[in-house]
Amino acid sequence: MTASAEQLDRDDPLAAMRDLFALPEGVVYLDGNSLGAMPKAVAAEMRVAVDEEWAGDLIGAWTKDGWWLLPETLGDLAGAIVGAAPGQTVVSDGTSINLHKALSAALDARPGRHVIVAEAAGFPADLYIAEALSAARAGVELRYLAEGEPLATALSTDVAVVLLSHVDYRTGALRDMAPETAAVHDAGALMVWDLCHSAGVVPVALDDCAVDFAVGCTYKYLNGGPGAPAFIYVAARLHAAARQPLAGWWAHAAPFDFERGFRADRGIRKFLCGTQPVLSLRALKPALELYVAVDLAAVREKSMALTQLFIDQVEARCAGHGLELLSPRSAERRGSQVAFTHPHGFAIARALIARGVVGDFRAPDVMRFGMAPLYLRYRDMVDAAAALEEVLVTEAWRAPEFQKRGAVT
Amino acid sequence: MTASAEQLDRDDPLAAMRDLFALPEGVVYLDGNSLGAMPKAVAAEMRVAVDEEWAGDLIGAWTKDGWWLLPETLGDLAGAIVGAAPGQTVVSDGTSINLHKALSAALDARPGRHVIVAEAAGFPADLYIAEALSAARAGVELRYLAEGEPLATALSTDVAVVLLSHVDYRTGALRDMAPETAAVHDAGALMVWDLCHSAGVVPVALDDCAVDFAVGCTYKYLNGGPGAPAFIYVAARLHAAARQPLAGWWAHAAPFDFERGFRADRGIRKFLCGTQPVLSLRALKPALELYVAVDLAAVREKSMALTQLFIDQVEARCAGHGLELLSPRSAERRGSQVAFTHPHGFAIARALIARGVVGDFRAPDVMRFGMAPLYLRYRDMVDAAAALEEVLVTEAWRAPEFQKRGAVT
Repeated sequence: MTASAEQLDRDDPLAAMRDLFALPEGVVYLDGNSLGAMPKAVAAEMRVAVDEEWAGDLIGAWTKDGWWLLPETLGDLAGAIVGAAPGQTVVSDGTSINLHKALSAALDARPGRHVIVAEAAGFPADLYIAEALSAARAGVELRYLAEGEPLATALSTDVAVVLLSHVDYRTGALRDMAPETAAVHDAGALMVWDLCHSAGVVPVALDDCAVDFAVGCTYKYLNGGPGAPAFIYVAARLHAAARQPLAGWWAHAAPFDFERGFRADRGIRKFLCGTQPVLSLRALKPALELYVAVDLAAVREKSMALTQLFIDQVEARCAGHGLELLSPRSAERRGSQVAFTHPHGFAIARALIARGVVGDFRAPDVMRFGMAPLYLRYRDMVDAAAALEEVLVTEAWRAPEFQKRGAVT
Repeated sequence: MTASAEQLDRDDPLAAMRDLFALPEGVVYLDGNSLGAMPKAVAAEMRVAVDEEWAGDLIGAWTKDGWWLLPETLGDLAGAIVGAAPGQTVVSDGTSINLHKALSAALDARPGRHVIVAEAAGFPADLYIAEALSAARAGVELRYLAEGEPLATALSTDVAVVLLSHVDYRTGALRDMAPETAAVHDAGALMVWDLCHSAGVVPVALDDCAVDFAVGCTYKYLNGGPGAPAFIYVAARLHAAARQPLAGWWAHAAPFDFERGFRADRGIRKFLCGTQPVLSLRALKPALELYVAVDLAAVREKSMALTQLFIDQVEARCAGHGLELLSPRSAERRGSQVAFTHPHGFAIARALIARGVVGDFRAPDVMRFGMAPLYLRYRDMVDAAAALEEVLVTEAWRAPEFQKRGAVT
């Protein structure tokens, strides 16, 4: 099996990409679905942004170095990665803020309807924002779709907007964007997709699927840097009528005229708010440029092969040790992530990290392993499964240092 | 007069601070009220953040390198600069987002009252946010205080919250925080101060003035880097009852438990939203550390002397050329900024920039000159006034290249 993995690595058309990323020696990094590894180009890019642009050009950098346009230029790059034609995506703020904008604009666009539908087992960060919005807006109801419940059962005539995660943060299950978007539209509602766990590893076709809104973060599989600003996509057909609840001066039609009274930009800039963190945006630029140049179909193919090899290896090596596969068994139904449950998942994840295999843990019992196809090798899957086998067989996870819960992200 | 400026520089107790900042050769930078100059320490700090923390520690950096706590640790530093005891200030998001949180929480805290009072000639970026909020919340009215109108006239019993800029972005006029906050409280309303143009150059005593909320940006006089995240202060007495409209997972009492259902943090973290741009936060750290160690009374003294010297020099040299002082004539009534109006202000500002004197322009006719006392010298005031005199006397501003309006920030 090890020989086979080595052969797969030799034949991998993406193998050369690994050298574009900074990776610590001796680590198999399976947490790119939480914080992606650093593209090596970032180091030089940050020196330019700091020493030449900020220190050298000072206020002039906003125009001379294109800072002012970064939300749009980076937005179009992000858009290209998720199947959006230019002018419909901006990079700005965080996913939570952008989700608030999208849900709020969707509610405004469907007067007479008052329900937000979201997955009960969905991304908690998203649900908190939906909860706060429904609490703040009189009459708005947040309706939960139970795990496994068909979407159709929730689509009554009072639904204004449906929020779904393209890939589930916990199980890695991949939703089928085209038919689910169509079903939401058939019910007269608008569709918001969260792409946090799919952008960069799963081909996405927002325009082709006639999606209304999408949000997603750039610091997971897109390798944009810790907490890098997020993207928001709003279909062009919605721009004219949309109302943005956090419309700040960057959303103004003439921001430098300092007019009294807000006049919204006619395009996607309407979804901006205020001044953006330029240094974090500058770090994101080389990452997005790298992804735009990649064949996402090849990435998806390798992603499915990596997750399958990992599942096969783990199940062959670790049978009888209490692991249960939480992710879909069919590669077509999975994002680029494998999740196993185990009653001692927290301690096992810690023991793996101590052996240089970095995955993460989500309460109550889920171990997540994210596969970033641009910098992972087939033999990393074998090595990670072997480490997991060792931790289970030797019960290394019982060591006291692996029991203490802390702030593990 | 030049001799006198040189003597003032020799006697300046803050003179050594200038060497802590990166400043281009041959430039008198009077736009620190728009984008502050770079502290030299940032370059090394960013290399650590990128090469050691992100690239080296990967996901572990959130705990190992204190990323997760940056909103609080930087918030307490920012708080110390504006007179806030620890635990009441976080650095997060931008000023516009934070203002939305503050105004929304204030409205919730004053049920039965429905008016937001704001200055008609206030910071447009703030007014847009207040406008969007009042449009989105049924029954909320945005009432404008006319320029020069006493605050008392607006304080009827239906006022929930008053938003004032501590220093006016255009005129540089400084408001008196203690009595105006007391007047707002006497009227039963809550007080939100915008400190964007005072934090770092004017001593601020939020706790002593019993202020309710304050917001401010960190990239102007605080030199935190382009678009660096902003701060929000919420008085501790308001934490328990406050409702935050953008409550995301960073505001949760147990963010890593991924609970279904939001439970707010009991302290100032309640005012956080989602994941923050770490690289921009890391660049801000050395700037805030630098300011915390500075005697702001000495900064204020030098600031008043600089603005006074500039006004005296300009009025002595440029009489009869159409300049009008827009800023208060009394130094005690000014922030660290001098504004002159001129019908050809735009072209004059451009001609000055071409001579290495960087101020900025705000429509329709205002030239702004921001004085950052940590890196400006008295002789810079003389040199800037001399350049202005030359531009006016020779009518250099009439050159075609200075006429074209662009996106000047």
